Amino acid sequence: MNSLSPASPTDPLPPPIHERLQRDRDEALDELCQWLRIGSISSDPRAVGEMKSAADWIENKLRSGGLLTRRIPTCGFDLVYAETPAVPGAPVVLVYGHYDVQPPEPLELWISGPFEPTIRDGNLFARGATDDKGQVLTHVQSVVRWLSTGRPLPVQIKFLIEGEEEVGSDGLNQALPELADLLACDCVVISDNSQYADGQPAITYGLRGILAMEIRVDGPKQDLHSGSFGGAVKNPAIALCQLINSMIDADGRISVEGFYDGCIPLSAEEIGLIDGLPSDDAQLAQELAVPTLFGEAGFSSNVRRWARPTFDVNGLTSGHQGEGGKTIIPSFASAKFSFRLTPGQDPDKVAAAVSRHLHQHLPAGVTLSIEPGHGAPAMISSTTSPFITAAKAAIEEAFGVAPVMIREGGSIPIVAKFQAELGADCLLLGWGLNDDGAHSPNEKFSVEDYHRGTLASAALWNRLGQLPR
Amino acid sequence: MNSLSPASPTDPLPPPIHERLQRDRDEALDELCQWLRIGSISSDPRAVGEMKSAADWIENKLRSGGLLTRRIPTCGFDLVYAETPAVPGAPVVLVYGHYDVQPPEPLELWISGPFEPTIRDGNLFARGATDDKGQVLTHVQSVVRWLSTGRPLPVQIKFLIEGEEEVGSDGLNQALPELADLLACDCVVISDNSQYADGQPAITYGLRGILAMEIRVDGPKQDLHSGSFGGAVKNPAIALCQLINSMIDADGRISVEGFYDGCIPLSAEEIGLIDGLPSDDAQLAQELAVPTLFGEAGFSSNVRRWARPTFDVNGLTSGHQGEGGKTIIPSFASAKFSFRLTPGQDPDKVAAAVSRHLHQHLPAGVTLSIEPGHGAPAMISSTTSPFITAAKAAIEEAFGVAPVMIREGGSIPIVAKFQAELGADCLLLGWGLNDDGAHSPNEKFSVEDYHRGTLASAALWNRLGQLPR
Repeated sequence: MNSLSPASPTDPLPPPIHERLQRDRDEALDELCQWLRIGSISSDPRAVGEMKSAADWIENKLRSGGLLTRRIPTCGFDLVYAETPAVPGAPVVLVYGHYDVQPPEPLELWISGPFEPTIRDGNLFARGATDDKGQVLTHVQSVVRWLSTGRPLPVQIKFLIEGEEEVGSDGLNQALPELADLLACDCVVISDNSQYADGQPAITYGLRGILAMEIRVDGPKQDLHSGSFGGAVKNPAIALCQLINSMIDADGRISVEGFYDGCIPLSAEEIGLIDGLPSDDAQLAQELAVPTLFGEAGFSSNVRRWARPTFDVNGLTSGHQGEGGKTIIPSFASAKFSFRLTPGQDPDKVAAAVSRHLHQHLPAGVTLSIEPGHGAPAMISSTTSPFITAAKAAIEEAFGVAPVMIREGGSIPIVAKFQAELGADCLLLGWGLNDDGAHSPNEKFSVEDYHRGTLASAALWNRLGQLPR
Repeated sequence: MNSLSPASPTDPLPPPIHERLQRDRDEALDELCQWLRIGSISSDPRAVGEMKSAADWIENKLRSGGLLTRRIPTCGFDLVYAETPAVPGAPVVLVYGHYDVQPPEPLELWISGPFEPTIRDGNLFARGATDDKGQVLTHVQSVVRWLSTGRPLPVQIKFLIEGEEEVGSDGLNQALPELADLLACDCVVISDNSQYADGQPAITYGLRGILAMEIRVDGPKQDLHSGSFGGAVKNPAIALCQLINSMIDADGRISVEGFYDGCIPLSAEEIGLIDGLPSDDAQLAQELAVPTLFGEAGFSSNVRRWARPTFDVNGLTSGHQGEGGKTIIPSFASAKFSFRLTPGQDPDKVAAAVSRHLHQHLPAGVTLSIEPGHGAPAMISSTTSPFITAAKAAIEEAFGVAPVMIREGGSIPIVAKFQAELGADCLLLGWGLNDDGAHSPNEKFSVEDYHRGTLASAALWNRLGQLPR
């Protein structure tokens, strides 16, 4: 499908499909509530039964809706696969989502039970409402309701719904190469993120990559009395601070030689588009309770968050941490840190550059050990592909507002894997909102966005079916 | 007594005293074992009975030896006071020590029980053997055995033995101003530290002061997702590392403006004396398991440990500290740190300079709070006073080796208080060894050093009594 020419204007959803979706709104919402009542917490060993129930529920929903389904065992929880009939000459779309959820703790902060879906002020509150049951179900509903009209879908839709997204997707990652034929597609659709703002839908065309590391600086074999030995040995906690300090300058630019190698600079045009989005630094600072925002000099906060590499220390540990003082030279100090990477940066090369830097800057008198963590490259997709054009039209049709094109600062490693293994473009269509509390108490999803997402999904199948062949 | 002229040579201990000490060696050792069997752990609320027993034991020992004694209640544990008769025109000496001990944990590392004194290889093993029961008892024995000969002591000896040295000496600190008349003296003798090396006794003429602080750098009101927000807000853990880094340069010199104000430089002569002591950096590095020693450029490790100010981070805390990674921007980061101070530095002024520095160097985007900890000035005493001359002669008489003059890097805040409240010089005469394990399992004290210390103590009274009046 790579020979597709730029899309010409396409038509809106046929009225019978639109009407069916309207008619079935209550039923579709009720079904979401059924799924949300299943506490499918992938990290909780006590929830193995719920994990199976949640997979059963969505597989049953797809099969009873007329799709062929298949359960794919992995080293972890099952993958649920389903497909509609092939449509010769039309695009093949893979919808990816997950049926597992984050743990709901701390429970005492929930206004209604995490697994007792409750509507308040137009929002459905439950663990998994936005992440990701509510969002992935919009695509399932659009397909099943469409098929229920007796009309064929204009494109083939494949579903891949996994149960380990919240715990690292080990099963899917291991299985993916063998599933390449089954999952072959022109484009992957994922709804597991957010609109730009309430009332302003968005298409995410870029994600940052990641590289996590942990280092440990060792000094004396045991904590020493800082009176007897202070001045004789290098303090490992100070050495650690000096190392961290050496990695980033006062302007927020990363000082590691070779770190920015390959990093594709943003065009002035793209910076202009990002900076043209409504954004209020002062308000964000207030919401986060920081005196002011901060980041690499020369870029706006949206550009810095979405499209510039960053360095963050995630944890520091050394010496005495309890109440009061203890005048010691700690035996060791450790730091966990991570980089967010941008297109063109290779996580392995960055890891090597960082290791080299740390060894070169290690103060005398201590030793260093480096524990490499996980890495994943950034993702960037075309902003002008026919898939994007179709998605823009579909979203405007459903939301009444044209989507803005955004990047996001987070990393979804599976997206880069889909690009690499399946050679497919990714459409990241978030129906959620930034304040949905995906991993927090009182997770929610707007009921209207659930319905609008379902409508946009159907409109997307319709528009993709009209792409010139 | 400040009009004392430099001492002329003095005579050794009269034979009857020397013989009495020799005769009573076994009894004196047995008495130490009695005292050591009492587990007087001042930090253990279950040991209140043992604390009283240990105070009773030493008070009884002093009273039955012919001294006047007094129990002085404080806000904490009792002080035990005792005195011999005044000797008109002769110096008054105050012996300070403590009857409380550190907790013995971890118990499983003790070869014999911490409160079951056991002799192995010429060492007496028990909690408190060196710190401080064994050491302070040398002075009690020398006085009591002397008096048992029927001869008067040539100087007045006062004892002040407290029960809270291991927990901050609150009771004594509060009581001290009111006790100034009772404790009035020309010189304070303390044996609660170590010889320079095995077979090389020492007199400690300087101690470093201390200033402890804790700082906390606050960023966002809660941990943030480093993907969504990395690049938008200042990372508090990085800010903390930058602050720590700003306080000390790569050569180990403290970069805080005003920090060294008032700091009295060591004379070339004193540096020469310290550097003339046998010392092996390579061996110390090996014992501590560090690749190399490290400290302020331009000074030897002994000078740095004893007589140069130092900065040590005692603890670091921020963000995720458990297993694995968590890609967050931590909400806050904190550090505990302390300075060792040298004569001429005022802890309050140093605290103000450090606070000023931290506020001036605080990166944008975070807030800082500073918790001042305890501070105490350094102590330095004359190395040529008649008291020192007498102590040198007494130690050489008992140990067969002239003592070396050393400083120590640690801080004994009560010493500076004695100097300030009583206007008295301090003689720090350590009979212990550096590897006695004062706060560790298998604490020990050499039996021979116990007897030599007792002999040196008696010789000191004798030599002090011969000082020109």
